[in-house]
Amino acid sequence: MAKRVTLLNGPNLNLLGKRQPEIYGYETLADIEARVAALAAELGLEVAAHQSNHEGVLVDLIQAARGQSQAILINPAAYSHTSVAILDALNAFEGLVIEVHISNIHKREAFRHHSYVSSRADGVIAGCGSEGYLLGLRRIASLLG
Amino acid sequence: MAKRVTLLNGPNLNLLGKRQPEIYGYETLADIEARVAALAAELGLEVAAHQSNHEGVLVDLIQAARGQSQAILINPAAYSHTSVAILDALNAFEGLVIEVHISNIHKREAFRHHSYVSSRADGVIAGCGSEGYLLGLRRIASLLG
Amino acid sequence: MAKRVTLLNGPNLNLLGKRQPEIYGYETLADIEARVAALAAELGLEVAAHQSNHEGVLVDLIQAARGQSQAILINPAAYSHTSVAILDALNAFEGLVIEVHISNIHKREAFRHHSYVSSRADGVIAGCGSEGYLLGLRRIASLLG
Amino acid sequence: MAKRVTLLNGPNLNLLGKRQPEIYGYETLADIEARVAALAAELGLEVAAHQSNHEGVLVDLIQAARGQSQAILINPAAYSHTSVAILDALNAFEGLVIEVHISNIHKREAFRHHSYVSSRADGVIAGCGSEGYLLGLRRIASLLG
Amino acid sequence: MAKRVTLLNGPNLNLLGKRQPEIYGYETLADIEARVAALAAELGLEVAAHQSNHEGVLVDLIQAARGQSQAILINPAAYSHTSVAILDALNAFEGLVIEVHISNIHKREAFRHHSYVSSRADGVIAGCGSEGYLLGLRRIASLLG
Amino acid sequence: MAKRVTLLNGPNLNLLGKRQPEIYGYETLADIEARVAALAAELGLEVAAHQSNHEGVLVDLIQAARGQSQAILINPAAYSHTSVAILDALNAFEGLVIEVHISNIHKREAFRHHSYVSSRADGVIAGCGSEGYLLGLRRIASLLG
Amino acid sequence: MAKRVTLLNGPNLNLLGKRQPEIYGYETLADIEARVAALAAELGLEVAAHQSNHEGVLVDLIQAARGQSQAILINPAAYSHTSVAILDALNAFEGLVIEVHISNIHKREAFRHHSYVSSRADGVIAGCGSEGYLLGLRRIASLLG
Amino acid sequence: MAKRVTLLNGPNLNLLGKRQPEIYGYETLADIEARVAALAAELGLEVAAHQSNHEGVLVDLIQAARGQSQAILINPAAYSHTSVAILDALNAFEGLVIEVHISNIHKREAFRHHSYVSSRADGVIAGCGSEGYLLGLRRIASLLG
Amino acid sequence: MAKRVTLLNGPNLNLLGKRQPEIYGYETLADIEARVAALAAELGLEVAAHQSNHEGVLVDLIQAARGQSQAILINPAAYSHTSVAILDALNAFEGLVIEVHISNIHKREAFRHHSYVSSRADGVIAGCGSEGYLLGLRRIASLLG
Amino acid sequence: MAKRVTLLNGPNLNLLGKRQPEIYGYETLADIEARVAALAAELGLEVAAHQSNHEGVLVDLIQAARGQSQAILINPAAYSHTSVAILDALNAFEGLVIEVHISNIHKREAFRHHSYVSSRADGVIAGCGSEGYLLGLRRIASLLG
Amino acid sequence: MAKRVTLLNGPNLNLLGKRQPEIYGYETLADIEARVAALAAELGLEVAAHQSNHEGVLVDLIQAARGQSQAILINPAAYSHTSVAILDALNAFEGLVIEVHISNIHKREAFRHHSYVSSRADGVIAGCGSEGYLLGLRRIASLLG
Amino acid sequence: MAKRVTLLNGPNLNLLGKRQPEIYGYETLADIEARVAALAAELGLEVAAHQSNHEGVLVDLIQAARGQSQAILINPAAYSHTSVAILDALNAFEGLVIEVHISNIHKREAFRHHSYVSSRADGVIAGCGSEGYLLGLRRIASLLG
Repeated sequence: MAKRVTLLNGPNLNLLGKRQPEIYGYETLADIEARVAALAAELGLEVAAHQSNHEGVLVDLIQAARGQSQAILINPAAYSHTSVAILDALNAFEGLVIEVHISNIHKREAFRHHSYVSSRADGVIAGCGSEGYLLGLRRIASLLG
Repeated sequence: MAKRVTLLNGPNLNLLGKRQPEIYGYETLADIEARVAALAAELGLEVAAHQSNHEGVLVDLIQAARGQSQAILINPAAYSHTSVAILDALNAFEGLVIEVHISNIHKREAFRHHSYVSSRADGVIAGCGSEGYLLGLRRIASLLG
Repeated sequence: MAKRVTLLNGPNLNLLGKRQPEIYGYETLADIEARVAALAAELGLEVAAHQSNHEGVLVDLIQAARGQSQAILINPAAYSHTSVAILDALNAFEGLVIEVHISNIHKREAFRHHSYVSSRADGVIAGCGSEGYLLGLRRIASLLG
Repeated sequence: MAKRVTLLNGPNLNLLGKRQPEIYGYETLADIEARVAALAAELGLEVAAHQSNHEGVLVDLIQAARGQSQAILINPAAYSHTSVAILDALNAFEGLVIEVHISNIHKREAFRHHSYVSSRADGVIAGCGSEGYLLGLRRIASLLG
Repeated sequence: MAKRVTLLNGPNLNLLGKRQPEIYGYETLADIEARVAALAAELGLEVAAHQSNHEGVLVDLIQAARGQSQAILINPAAYSHTSVAILDALNAFEGLVIEVHISNIHKREAFRHHSYVSSRADGVIAGCGSEGYLLGLRRIASLLG
Repeated sequence: MAKRVTLLNGPNLNLLGKRQPEIYGYETLADIEARVAALAAELGLEVAAHQSNHEGVLVDLIQAARGQSQAILINPAAYSHTSVAILDALNAFEGLVIEVHISNIHKREAFRHHSYVSSRADGVIAGCGSEGYLLGLRRIASLLG
Repeated sequence: MAKRVTLLNGPNLNLLGKRQPEIYGYETLADIEARVAALAAELGLEVAAHQSNHEGVLVDLIQAARGQSQAILINPAAYSHTSVAILDALNAFEGLVIEVHISNIHKREAFRHHSYVSSRADGVIAGCGSEGYLLGLRRIASLLG
Repeated sequence: MAKRVTLLNGPNLNLLGKRQPEIYGYETLADIEARVAALAAELGLEVAAHQSNHEGVLVDLIQAARGQSQAILINPAAYSHTSVAILDALNAFEGLVIEVHISNIHKREAFRHHSYVSSRADGVIAGCGSEGYLLGLRRIASLLG
Repeated sequence: MAKRVTLLNGPNLNLLGKRQPEIYGYETLADIEARVAALAAELGLEVAAHQSNHEGVLVDLIQAARGQSQAILINPAAYSHTSVAILDALNAFEGLVIEVHISNIHKREAFRHHSYVSSRADGVIAGCGSEGYLLGLRRIASLLG
Repeated sequence: MAKRVTLLNGPNLNLLGKRQPEIYGYETLADIEARVAALAAELGLEVAAHQSNHEGVLVDLIQAARGQSQAILINPAAYSHTSVAILDALNAFEGLVIEVHISNIHKREAFRHHSYVSSRADGVIAGCGSEGYLLGLRRIASLLG
Repeated sequence: MAKRVTLLNGPNLNLLGKRQPEIYGYETLADIEARVAALAAELGLEVAAHQSNHEGVLVDLIQAARGQSQAILINPAAYSHTSVAILDALNAFEGLVIEVHISNIHKREAFRHHSYVSSRADGVIAGCGSEGYLLGLRRIASLLG
Repeated sequence: MAKRVTLLNGPNLNLLGKRQPEIYGYETLADIEARVAALAAELGLEVAAHQSNHEGVLVDLIQAARGQSQAILINPAAYSHTSVAILDALNAFEGLVIEVHISNIHKREAFRHHSYVSSRADGVIAGCGSEGYLLGLRRIASLLG
């Protein structure tokens, strides 16, 4: 039976492809979710994808993944830097956590250099554009394999 | 007529008893709410209990307690460390505020040592497990007595 | 055709006039919104006003202003100090941003001295009471003129 | 056989009721010790109470509690913030440690926000006035029960 | 009888319109003083305008405003960030103080983010270009009205 | 009837005149106490002098001065920099407090630049050698006069 | 013609598989280089692999890649945190740079959280074990494609 | 022949007795200069008194005292905290330097706790009101005696 | 005639062998003092050994060693990190000072990494268990030889 | 036609050769200005030299150099470390700026290690004594050449 | 069979006895290595001694000691403060590590107070001159014994 | 007989003229060494030039200059900011040290603002391009003259 992965995207990622392409690229979130789904199929994984601008909704979604998904692939976006609530939700999740950032956050403002989520994540991929999601999925597939 | 207390639990506390019992213990939130209600009855208090993973909802609930409750018994969980909005809502609440943390936050990661809520709370109880809620309620009863 | 301005008020500002008048004054939010609307009419602007206690809702509202409004007049309140998500949403907004604080945040607690929003705002007005909204609107009118 | 609790009060607490009642209340230390003793009797505990202005004496008293008491209920007062020696003595004590502060130290000067003792204490209660000792004793009773 | 406002401009503002127009705009200080005077007349205020590159002269001018003006409208420029002497002079001034910065200082070098004057000012307006002086004058008119 | 002053000297000041004369001078503590007593007599004051190397004893002595002395003239020496307990004892003392340091502590190691006692003292005199005690006594006489 | 990638491994990575497998896994460096070469072949890339414990040698190797390779895949290991010289060499390299860390450096000691190399890297992959090299190579292939 | 002392008062001290008497007292600067002159006469000293709001003028005055005065009695006021130029001028003065602050600067805002002048001064007297000048003069007399 | 060494042990070291043997080992303080005495005899030295939990008593003992002992071998334990008074007493001691820590304090909590005593000590030995005392004594013997 | 250089010397440099020769050397400012003028003549440059102890005068002089001089050779002395006003004036100067310090400021007190002027200067020369002015002038000649 | 100890000396220690004898003493490195060898023989140990100015060579030497030596006696000199690579190599060494510093690094510049190596070392000896190596060897002998 | 100068260039300076000319200019290192040699000849000095990317080699070269050269002219490049080993080697060099940086390091990233070498250098020249080497050589000639 297929392993299940929850793909979570945080605030403002619904605007992907519509704003600041020099930082975030030209693909839309739908494009990315489709590419992730395609690769997942290829790797024998099932993906449930969600995006929210609300910290609380992201917490709810992480909680909902408990017992349902073997891994979370998450781009927490702005909440990476400010949300202990998301960190705590991930701490209560028993599976794998791979954190993705489209841009290389280490090249941006100082407040983007620290991510609460990184202290929980199994792996962290930054600056690989939307391909970062695919790389993260590959890592999940290897570990769940 | 019975004095009214609003019991508020913050993000991820709906998972109590279901995750990390070595930190948070084995009781569920329902168990704790029931124990608080029982002690409240004994002390002649009425309790309205809420939990939310959403900072904004917690702000709404604190605002709703204005003019309705004489005290708020709150475990802000992760939002203790990051929410000025909750602090401001509590600053606008005219009654008592008792802050409870199940674990001793001073023994955990450095970012958990500071609570915005503590700068408003009348009393702070940490590390007394779920019994902390009962101790907080006793303090409220004494002050409202 | 009238230029459109989105007026956004953050957490606890729905309590204006009802709490801590020594800091925030005696006018209600409705009073302020009415005064802003009146001045807007005079300046040939249209205003759409919203308030929310929820960070995520404010992000949604800023996103919704994209392509609809030429300017955002925002009092982010507590989220000024803690929300990268709102900053990112404003970064994705192509129009003017004027930030207003009713009180002079530089005279209050140290954690209120820094605003993420200020690093995006075109102009910042603090400590001018509710009149700050009107001054901000005048600035918008000049720039959009 | 009754369980034994050592009640320790640190520097200047012998002045309780005699100075700064707006911070520390009107009860004397003798009043508090009597209330603790009364509740202890009710809870089936025995209490040995001591106060000292001397860091070294407090270290001696903590050492003396080893093998004699099952719990220490301590208000380290000023030494909370400066004494590694008391922390080390408590680290060498094998029983429970509950730390009490009459005032909410988080609302006072910054140097009072950190307590060395908190990194050892099982529970911490602050800002509940002299009732904090009683709440602490109840916690001890529950745990020793 | 007309209320009197002292308009003070700090170091290098005599170069306005002559340097770095991308930061400070194209108007000269004389242009701005003329616009302020015109609006003042409209608002029933009298304005006495001064500029100096000398911290001590600015202190002298603030002292001279004592008992003569009901308000000071000041752009302390570089001295915002370094002058306790100007802060102290303003502390000895019994009237209103509105602080203006032409650029948004929060978007510039870190040392420009802090202003000693802001800890005394009644209102602070930044990033509204030369119009900031007019907005500040309106605020003064409202308060003196 | 003569006003009474408690003169307190902290740790290692019993060695005055016997060590590091390049920092502390050649007079012994007895010499200084004698000079203070002589000037006190001249100024119509009575002096009770104590020295201790023990923080707790200094706390006891400050407490003992309550209700007995109108002023404390104190050189807390090393405890200036480390003792919150002495600060708290002085906070509970209702009279005048003048703090004296023989050397100019601002010219020495960084950890000697901060004194907890200074946040309570009415006056602080440093770097005036043993004459600092006499200057402090004169200040006390003026204020008690 | 095949694109060329320089694979660089920093200090102590020659011990891979021979020390601390709980942090670094069980594969040897030769194993990893072989897996990278295999995937490179599949992706139509050529790989030149080097390891050194010497900062200066790594600088030399990066310089040697100028004009020879289109990309550098580097695990700078300990030098990530301390070497400006390697950063400067990479700054002088005109191609792609992907940084890999086998372990999640954000979960380890604080001094490992900062990498000079990250401020130059196009992408950063951490905590994906030896697979991180393969993911990095895929990213390079996509960009060079 | 009489020894000569230069008395220097920094910015805003010309307002003494005219502003914030709760901090600075009710005496005017002229009153204080007269009291200093009277005591100087008694002690066989000659005093030349100056006040300036200008850092540069204070530097000039300190330079002018070289070779003319045996001591400088200085209240640098706001420039204590910000002026390296005054420190350097004092470093070039070969005589005694006594620093006086009317208020206890250690009880005020944090930026007033550090004085550049203190790193040069022979003695420092703070919080003794205008009497601090007299105490400083006595110290000078003793040392010049 | 035999050279004399004062051996001083600070707070909680009287519990050696009775607590936390994983940090401090299994020997009692008496065992250690006996081993030191034995080696001293062998090296032609005389040792006077003291332990105290009281900072003030340690200051007294250091003062008492002046003129009596040629060297102090001290394990200041917790007071290493907090006592300026002990540092000052050692500064007034004219002989050798060797500081010993049984555990490697650099591997423990950050507040244990700094020792005031180290800024005075001639030599510092940490993490060599109780043998550290013997190594320290050998160093003293070499220097006194 | 000769290129023109403005030579500016800041506070206390009028004392050169008269104070602290171990830091600043034995030449007077007149000597240095003469040597600079001589070398300038040789290099085909014209020099206008000024010194002031007043920050505001230095700002005035820098402004006056606009459109008159092709370069400023400046030793800002103490104002290097404290003056944003001078930095801003230099930012408004369109020509070359070379900063000179007679002593090596990096070997002196920590507050002398940072210079606001360095963030604007084209070149910085420190610790080369009065010859630093000549080296700076040579650099100007090369660039203006 | 004799236990083997690797003695490693870091950068500039080849100059021992040839530079700054007031800090490092008069013995050459050869002298010290000879004394260590002599004591080793006495203690039944074998010593292999190396010195290098190259961080990478020291890493190589530590790696080479794996499986060959039971202990490393190391004076990392300047690399103590800057080398994570050496720390990592020592982390991969399975035997004892004793760190020696000839001078007391805690009395020198602040950047010498921290040693990366200390977070791995079993014991640390500083300020005991070249005898520190002998003391370290004795400790090794005891532990290997 | 000619005085001898050792010219040392640190990591990546072998790439001069080949990378980032907007920062480092268009001359190659060979060009610069030739210009230095030419000026040296003119000034009666002999120059031995070396470049290395290896910290340890630079240490070796500095040691080799002892007793051979009267001065070192060094551009430590990246190692300025990270190498205590080079600082220590220079501390052991008895002659002159002039430090050169081609770019103005104070205008670049914060980690480039501090140079360990500056705390040893006699003079420091930054931001004067390759001419900085010539200016440094002139300074050496003056001092050796």
